[in-house]
Amino acid sequence: MSDKPSVEELQSLLERSPFNSFSGAKIESIDYDTQTLVMSMPMRPEFERRADSGQWHGGPIAALIDTAGDYAMAIHVGAPVPTINFRTDYLRPAINTSLTATAKVRRAGRTVGVVDIDVTDGNQKLVAVGRGTYAGSAG
Amino acid sequence: MSDKPSVEELQSLLERSPFNSFSGAKIESIDYDTQTLVMSMPMRPEFERRADSGQWHGGPIAALIDTAGDYAMAIHVGAPVPTINFRTDYLRPAINTSLTATAKVRRAGRTVGVVDIDVTDGNQKLVAVGRGTYAGSAG
Amino acid sequence: MSDKPSVEELQSLLERSPFNSFSGAKIESIDYDTQTLVMSMPMRPEFERRADSGQWHGGPIAALIDTAGDYAMAIHVGAPVPTINFRTDYLRPAINTSLTATAKVRRAGRTVGVVDIDVTDGNQKLVAVGRGTYAGSAG
Amino acid sequence: MSDKPSVEELQSLLERSPFNSFSGAKIESIDYDTQTLVMSMPMRPEFERRADSGQWHGGPIAALIDTAGDYAMAIHVGAPVPTINFRTDYLRPAINTSLTATAKVRRAGRTVGVVDIDVTDGNQKLVAVGRGTYAGSAG
Repeated sequence: MSDKPSVEELQSLLERSPFNSFSGAKIESIDYDTQTLVMSMPMRPEFERRADSGQWHGGPIAALIDTAGDYAMAIHVGAPVPTINFRTDYLRPAINTSLTATAKVRRAGRTVGVVDIDVTDGNQKLVAVGRGTYAGSAG
Repeated sequence: MSDKPSVEELQSLLERSPFNSFSGAKIESIDYDTQTLVMSMPMRPEFERRADSGQWHGGPIAALIDTAGDYAMAIHVGAPVPTINFRTDYLRPAINTSLTATAKVRRAGRTVGVVDIDVTDGNQKLVAVGRGTYAGSAG
Repeated sequence: MSDKPSVEELQSLLERSPFNSFSGAKIESIDYDTQTLVMSMPMRPEFERRADSGQWHGGPIAALIDTAGDYAMAIHVGAPVPTINFRTDYLRPAINTSLTATAKVRRAGRTVGVVDIDVTDGNQKLVAVGRGTYAGSAG
Repeated sequence: MSDKPSVEELQSLLERSPFNSFSGAKIESIDYDTQTLVMSMPMRPEFERRADSGQWHGGPIAALIDTAGDYAMAIHVGAPVPTINFRTDYLRPAINTSLTATAKVRRAGRTVGVVDIDVTDGNQKLVAVGRGTYAGSAG
């Protein structure tokens, strides 16, 4: 697996991005066998939906889904690739909690890849699910 | 149309949200007849995809789509409603530009509403398209 | 679990539908604990993409996804419910094979439910994935 | 525009497909300037949702969306291309009516293309909307 990027290498790429750096996204682990990447994101005051609610706005949750899926594809490609499209379904409010996105590659082709992303809160409750299509290894 | 919220009323609701306030989202106009709302968002340094690229990260674009669709539904409901799900398709990079989202309600039902959102850059080039489902007037 | 519909009860509802009857959709099993329903569909000559190719056209695959998700929701509601929207991603061609859809409810709410549907061929290869939103138990 | 396929050429390709031939899909018109293709589909007994309801099952509506979007891409590419993914939103029941899909290319790139598809009934009421991603001209 020496040709696969490590958590540290991908985290270093992630932090070059001002948005990802600002959001505090952190790669927690990579499972190369199941093609799964886990990314966490802490709550920030700027990410609140309503003042003093402690609730995440949907926008940063969608951004976490997009980014986690992208870095799951990077396991194959070596670096993040352009997102083609993605879908976000919100299942429950996320309140006063950090979020954890588990991104699993369902298909990594030359042209496109498809990734599923589950987002859970600190109690392992499912908050949102995402599904994204990304440029493939030849993209 | 006296029962329809004005631009100023919806902008006031928008700014109560720390995330929307931070993002600088601004309601530019509402066309009540065609059920269309126009929202702008300026570039922020925190929204950059890569340092010194001037390119928008996809996450804030998705957030703009979600929020613009939500406030288009608010034309009917009087206030923003929960997003059920939405899809974002990225068509072109957006570089050194503010963004304009034009959100048009395709169907506003009691249970759910469906909104199309086109995002253009300062040259009126299409950057991304979104489609969202939101809770309806009875939601 | 006496209030949950059985495979036979749901299959009987399924066959009342001319389209589902024509397509040959068959409920293979229900796992009430994991909220998962398995549905099979045989190849029909009318479902071929190109003459003599043996390849499934994408349309019937999307129909299988929609229907399998719907009947997974029916585990909760007792009968199929209106589909609000769904997404289909095609991963590999399906050739000279019957298809099996495994539909798992991710969230069953009063207003809406969200279901994931994986479609595999006779060799257990993943052919397509779907994600649908359906009217909930109060819909 | 002599290098663009005509309605007759695309209709001939369409009818080579057993599924499309069975479904009765017909290309009504192509507007090359706006990159828009109109396709009709008559009701068939096999497409009914419930016996004697006259209502279209969602599956054939999704198939119409997929196919119309595909042939809109074919305006550029010369022949239908693989669908990568698509989303279907159902807005109103379609009862005792033929359907008309208006498919408009939003972006035709080398790798992927994005198409919007509106489906209306015989009274020009919007029944469903679709959005699809297809392989591009280099696909």
